[in-house]
Amino acid sequence: MPISETWLLPDGVADVLPEQAQVIEILRREALDFLASRGFQLVYTPFIEYIESLSSLSESNQDLDLATFKVIDQLSGRLLGVRADMTPQVARIDAHVHPVEGVARYCYAGTVLHTKPQGFNTTRAPLQLGAELFGSDSIDADVEMVDVMLSLLQKAGLANGIHLDLGHVGLFRSLVKHAGLSKATERRLSDLYQRKALPELAEFTQTLKFGADFYNLGRYASDLDALQNNLSAEIIADVEFKSAFDVVKKTQSEIQARWPELHIGIDVVELRSYHYHTGLMYAVYAPNRAAPLAQGGRYDGIGEHFGRARPATGFSCDLYALSAGQFKQIHTVVAPKGTDKALLEAIANVRDQGFSVIQLLGNDGLNSIPNATHQMVLVAGEWKVETI
Amino acid sequence: MPISETWLLPDGVADVLPEQAQVIEILRREALDFLASRGFQLVYTPFIEYIESLSSLSESNQDLDLATFKVIDQLSGRLLGVRADMTPQVARIDAHVHPVEGVARYCYAGTVLHTKPQGFNTTRAPLQLGAELFGSDSIDADVEMVDVMLSLLQKAGLANGIHLDLGHVGLFRSLVKHAGLSKATERRLSDLYQRKALPELAEFTQTLKFGADFYNLGRYASDLDALQNNLSAEIIADVEFKSAFDVVKKTQSEIQARWPELHIGIDVVELRSYHYHTGLMYAVYAPNRAAPLAQGGRYDGIGEHFGRARPATGFSCDLYALSAGQFKQIHTVVAPKGTDKALLEAIANVRDQGFSVIQLLGNDGLNSIPNATHQMVLVAGEWKVETI
Repeated sequence: MPISETWLLPDGVADVLPEQAQVIEILRREALDFLASRGFQLVYTPFIEYIESLSSLSESNQDLDLATFKVIDQLSGRLLGVRADMTPQVARIDAHVHPVEGVARYCYAGTVLHTKPQGFNTTRAPLQLGAELFGSDSIDADVEMVDVMLSLLQKAGLANGIHLDLGHVGLFRSLVKHAGLSKATERRLSDLYQRKALPELAEFTQTLKFGADFYNLGRYASDLDALQNNLSAEIIADVEFKSAFDVVKKTQSEIQARWPELHIGIDVVELRSYHYHTGLMYAVYAPNRAAPLAQGGRYDGIGEHFGRARPATGFSCDLYALSAGQFKQIHTVVAPKGTDKALLEAIANVRDQGFSVIQLLGNDGLNSIPNATHQMVLVAGEWKVETI
Repeated sequence: MPISETWLLPDGVADVLPEQAQVIEILRREALDFLASRGFQLVYTPFIEYIESLSSLSESNQDLDLATFKVIDQLSGRLLGVRADMTPQVARIDAHVHPVEGVARYCYAGTVLHTKPQGFNTTRAPLQLGAELFGSDSIDADVEMVDVMLSLLQKAGLANGIHLDLGHVGLFRSLVKHAGLSKATERRLSDLYQRKALPELAEFTQTLKFGADFYNLGRYASDLDALQNNLSAEIIADVEFKSAFDVVKKTQSEIQARWPELHIGIDVVELRSYHYHTGLMYAVYAPNRAAPLAQGGRYDGIGEHFGRARPATGFSCDLYALSAGQFKQIHTVVAPKGTDKALLEAIANVRDQGFSVIQLLGNDGLNSIPNATHQMVLVAGEWKVETI
């Protein structure tokens, strides 16, 4: 690579310059402080792990595995993965490193790397911030996580015009089980639901056992009452189906009670991360953005891979995406050179007020600091800050 | 790997649990806020880059290169490196991405990865925090960076009993140039100095041109006055030697004036990062710790690799190492379940006071939160926080 191109960055990664870094830094702190106030304890997870440890999300392995950069450990000769998701790492902590009896709440913030851009995002290095709740299978836990997710976005000033989408993989999954479908048929259906291809769905379900129910699940996916009225009594009475159905309904009403203005959408055939999740799924969308601002769901049993299966639910977001397009102007005060006591005290005072103060170096003049916005000048024996 | 071992981590990386993560988080914020008050602007640098971009520290390439994990970019087919040091990245920003005319000050904090533990450290994933000053070759810039480094440690409560070591690669380098030594002899001498092997040095320098000067440089490496009295007039008069000598002397006296109680050690044959640095080098040591708390130096011209050579000086430290052994107890307040208005208001108030408050889930009792330290109880119609 010629010198003239050494500054080029790979696709999907970027430098963050001060005006935007400041926004991200503030957002990161506010978010972590908010999560702490809600009882989520901060953990830092390692950037590299043995590949076997990172691949705990059983069936979803393949996606996560493909997204994971692999390197050889020069100390052990074994294969390491660079973390592509922090959730399995926090599950490992809950299962083994910090095995609390009862309910555990953790939060985290850190860069993850993807071999290729994932989903709607173009970045390969999101700054993932998330919260996880382990050890409770109560609907209260799902409601809490959705409420925390919404409150976090509100704290960050990002709740304007947002809408919440609720889904639940259990409705489709219990229907599949009830009908005894093959894996191939299940995959085909899942694909049709995800493409919202109703005409194709109608045709495909005609010859299927419980075909009308599979069709109506797609047809009335966003309307729980209509769905209930259009499913066969046998399906409605299925214990697993009923339980999943009630979770969506109860979460919707509890969240609506806490967020009366919020638009809540239901999509019980949203199967985005079908293999990963085991129950309620939730995502928040902002107007004019394709990718969700934050998303999560229930993924019970994740810790099994580490020897302790626990109920788990949580969400995450990308701080880079959340802060996109926001900039904060930075005020820089320039002070003259010197170690005069009065000057140094005046500088310390201005710094204590939260300003950034630079003293000139060598024979430099004010023009050596092109980003200067203010300067300190001696007026009638007192140091004052003046706008430049 | 059997399930029972999936929680094992590779050597040199670790989880950080809440009690310690809290300490690091506070330290990180205090350090970045302090650096901002001194005019250092925060940047975030990418975790992966083309390998050619990361290898900007010309002759030191080999060390840095060996420490860098390499992966293939699936998008471009090219070799990527995972950052092992953030300084070259910030130099790239200064040289190309944000090419300020005049003086630029940047700071950063982020994880770097090393293929093997470096130096005295056992970690392979330090949380590197640092500050860099570009565009000034004035001694004032070196003095500022040493002062900032010391002040940062003081802010972090780590200045107790510390001592500062000053070195300068220019003394040895100008002597080598003056004597016209071969690369092999230079390497041999550098090795003897680093091993502090005075008897061997005496023998080796006997037949060397300016041999007495080379010996005395090692013999009086920590005493500038004695060094000056024991070098030949020709060396003392060498422009480059004199300039390097004056930088050490002036920095020492300026720093001592600002930090009258500080123990300052001089070692002009400390050649730890000889290939990397071009001028003054500085390191802070704490009692009973082999690795420096923070270290840095001048590395002029680093940006040349990116098309713009600039004077540069800076330091860095590892936040994990700085916070080692420190823990912060976390207070967790447990509140009963419910959406009663008075209860929710009381919870919000306690959270606003900086406490972590958890509401019980489902049919859980107080024992579901084993880390609870306080609980909210209704006393005469008012919600109070009580120690458990």
